[in-house]
Amino acid sequence: MTGEVEVILVGDELLKGDRRDAHLQFIGALVRTIGARITQAHMVPDNRAVIAATVKARIRKDRAIVVSGGLGPTHDDITREAVADGIGVSLEFREDQWKWIVGVFKGFSKTPHESNKRQAYFPAGSDVIPNDHGTAPGFMVEKGGCLIAVLPGPPRELRPMMESAVLDRLKSMFGREPLFAETYRTTGIGESDMTPKVELLFGHFEKEFTISSLPHIGGVDVVLTARARGDMKKQKKRAGEFEDGLREILGTHVFGTGTRDFPAVIGDLLAKRGETLAVAESLTGGLIGKSLTDAPGSSDYLLADVVAYSNESKVEFLGVKKKSLKDHGAVSDVVCREMAAGIRARTGATYGISTTGIAGPDGGTKDKPVGLTYFGLASDDGEKIMHRVFPGDRTTVRERVAYAVLNLLYRKLTR
Amino acid sequence: MTGEVEVILVGDELLKGDRRDAHLQFIGALVRTIGARITQAHMVPDNRAVIAATVKARIRKDRAIVVSGGLGPTHDDITREAVADGIGVSLEFREDQWKWIVGVFKGFSKTPHESNKRQAYFPAGSDVIPNDHGTAPGFMVEKGGCLIAVLPGPPRELRPMMESAVLDRLKSMFGREPLFAETYRTTGIGESDMTPKVELLFGHFEKEFTISSLPHIGGVDVVLTARARGDMKKQKKRAGEFEDGLREILGTHVFGTGTRDFPAVIGDLLAKRGETLAVAESLTGGLIGKSLTDAPGSSDYLLADVVAYSNESKVEFLGVKKKSLKDHGAVSDVVCREMAAGIRARTGATYGISTTGIAGPDGGTKDKPVGLTYFGLASDDGEKIMHRVFPGDRTTVRERVAYAVLNLLYRKLTR
Repeated sequence: MTGEVEVILVGDELLKGDRRDAHLQFIGALVRTIGARITQAHMVPDNRAVIAATVKARIRKDRAIVVSGGLGPTHDDITREAVADGIGVSLEFREDQWKWIVGVFKGFSKTPHESNKRQAYFPAGSDVIPNDHGTAPGFMVEKGGCLIAVLPGPPRELRPMMESAVLDRLKSMFGREPLFAETYRTTGIGESDMTPKVELLFGHFEKEFTISSLPHIGGVDVVLTARARGDMKKQKKRAGEFEDGLREILGTHVFGTGTRDFPAVIGDLLAKRGETLAVAESLTGGLIGKSLTDAPGSSDYLLADVVAYSNESKVEFLGVKKKSLKDHGAVSDVVCREMAAGIRARTGATYGISTTGIAGPDGGTKDKPVGLTYFGLASDDGEKIMHRVFPGDRTTVRERVAYAVLNLLYRKLTR
Repeated sequence: MTGEVEVILVGDELLKGDRRDAHLQFIGALVRTIGARITQAHMVPDNRAVIAATVKARIRKDRAIVVSGGLGPTHDDITREAVADGIGVSLEFREDQWKWIVGVFKGFSKTPHESNKRQAYFPAGSDVIPNDHGTAPGFMVEKGGCLIAVLPGPPRELRPMMESAVLDRLKSMFGREPLFAETYRTTGIGESDMTPKVELLFGHFEKEFTISSLPHIGGVDVVLTARARGDMKKQKKRAGEFEDGLREILGTHVFGTGTRDFPAVIGDLLAKRGETLAVAESLTGGLIGKSLTDAPGSSDYLLADVVAYSNESKVEFLGVKKKSLKDHGAVSDVVCREMAAGIRARTGATYGISTTGIAGPDGGTKDKPVGLTYFGLASDDGEKIMHRVFPGDRTTVRERVAYAVLNLLYRKLTR
């Protein structure tokens, strides 16, 4: 049996558009490591009756419910009361927990507010989950064979509590053997182009695995999940056969497996080859550098990234010719070429890449519309410059050209 | 009456940790513009019975339910069937819609797959919502005075469909007068420090407004929402009084209102003063440049951002002295100072800011642990360099120091 986890996220801010949830992805990936899965998730407002009714409705034997948010000291933090209502018990004051809270405040040379006292109340029968990063302890309580784990909302508090106390409890509840799953990441191909090519292959594996395609900005992720627990070694072998088939059909469109990002995979390729990279950005404004340096160890191959936003800085830092800027403008094949070649020459990197264009929403003209972008690669073989008019808003245009120039480099590294 | 919207997001990928939802925030913010709000949201797997049961359970008179995802051509796209089940009608083939789909494919010089035919089926009684960015039309259908709007999952398809057809229908259902709401954004102060200071002020306004505090990486957002529709002018005036009180208590910790981000607010200040900025990044790797250039018009004040990741590039682009690197190391007060002064001198910007440090997870030593960061500001008044050891993982450390150096600049611009 696969462990069944439901998630209830409490907070007006998630429903009002103020905040984007990050817990669900974290919890989903975490419970997957022990072969459990989130079967449903519910986002509810800071409303005692609604929270209580939702908890009550979702209680099932052999299920775990993770509730997050609303454990703070203020009057709109009512999750404690609501969960107690939902399982039909009262709250109890825990002197030991109050002492602990006073101690935390003392550590910051402060004394707790009277309102913090609320954080020492728990539904009867709860096991307290210590919180090393805040003043709100969590708790776990059982009802009808269902485990209800209640955790504070801030990620830096919830995450360690999930990873230790809650995960341990889930392991003893569900067992610890994960379902086999693997993700194959592709680039430079859309879902509609991929689907007919891989249909036959997918058909051969559908009895053993669920196969889903998830489009992202530069390609498609193909996710394989075993339909049932079984001989893990055998499943891995079959998945390997699937991967071979996929790579045979799609070639280097398949850039990697797992959760490793495209920029990190490019970094791995550079590190393996002992080569280096330097970046010259205009419209992307640091996005490429940021995405490359998200990966630990990127200082091994990334030498520098110059965001030359003004014309003067293109001249000063990249050696772009004033005449080129004057004759062709900053958004041109010529300037993009000089940027790529310039950053490469200045840093001595194996490869130089560059972007220039009009991200919008303003700055477009009839000849050079919003979305027009040039992106280039300089190497020992000279420069290769491409251009595209990308649709979408400012963010999308910037993301697309960042992906496109990295793809240009990727193709160079894999062909 | 406030319009009540529920959201049902369909997709295994949201529950398995593969993908982070972006729809809820978008829909929440959008319906707020017409005074409606999301009252609950549910995330369910690609399972016909579960989707159908969830739709059925959430139907209420005068409610709108937005369902997203599972309208594609593949066998696991079963939202059409599930919604029809949930409201108790059958699917009908729409010849006109099939012709439209064939036309879309023709536009790309392709012919549709037989499987695409499924996308021309709709629950009986549906109004079709055209999709200008994909092959899956959406639809709206009524049941028991409840509107059910069903849209494809990809954001670039869902968003325009929500903004036009669905929003128009919601307006005629709920009326178009928004609830008054405003967000006051603060920086450089934590929730626990803010709470006791603002308690009295909040108390004075709690009868008219709900007031919530949302901590973010560099401060707290205070969100004021009118408890009921009313004289908008009067509510605005009262909110103005609240803002005056907040600013009196917190001073320039209050950096702005609405959804404008901190980097954009700094940009506004620079533009207003006719001043310019240049950035020298090390551990932040482009994050600061990226966040500044997220704002349209940033080319007016941002001259350049040099990500000098290697020691050589610090010398080459920023004029950092080799001796400083040798004597103190790249992560030092001295090098951070030379970076800020160097980028300012090279670009002629009014201000230069810089970061250097150890983002981790590797590279820390006993003297220079992971999280150690230096950040600095150079101006006509010389350089001001600060250092901190930030807790957290690589991403958190990078975000915190980016925020900290922008805060240093903000204080310079506002004091």
